[in-house]
Amino acid sequence: MKAKIYITLKRTVLDPQGKAVTNALNSLGFNKVLDTRVGRYIEIELKEKNKQAAEKKVHQMCDQLLSNPVIEEYRFDLD
Amino acid sequence: MKAKIYITLKRTVLDPQGKAVTNALNSLGFNKVLDTRVGRYIEIELKEKNKQAAEKKVHQMCDQLLSNPVIEEYRFDLD
Repeated sequence: MKAKIYITLKRTVLDPQGKAVTNALNSLGFNKVLDTRVGRYIEIELKEKNKQAAEKKVHQMCDQLLSNPVIEEYRFDLD
Repeated sequence: MKAKIYITLKRTVLDPQGKAVTNALNSLGFNKVLDTRVGRYIEIELKEKNKQAAEKKVHQMCDQLLSNPVIEEYRFDLD
């Protein structure tokens, strides 16, 4: 089973990297770019057939290692 | 319109960060983790109503700034 995890900064947290990308895109002539948020995308290959068990494990991994719950939020798909 | 861009290393490129995450997860007791790939996830808010025009722009942004075509590949959704 494969988990696709998307980790982003919470909406209320300032994203300086995203700001820099917005400015860079505008400088390159992409004037229609209003805002950019930069996050992480993690794919995990799991040796687990049971979807519920996999879901529980991925939540634990995100809480313990992959995301910083203070400033980030995550979501994931399993397939 | 919002573009959600997923940038990952090509399959053939070694991913040391992913390897490190796999090892860390295994050390934490997640023994069923076989492999991990770490990439970037970028959300861009565009002032563009036309889907085709937006698609073209996002391709250009990825090629010119957001991804490194030598070692990375990207895909995106628009909504």
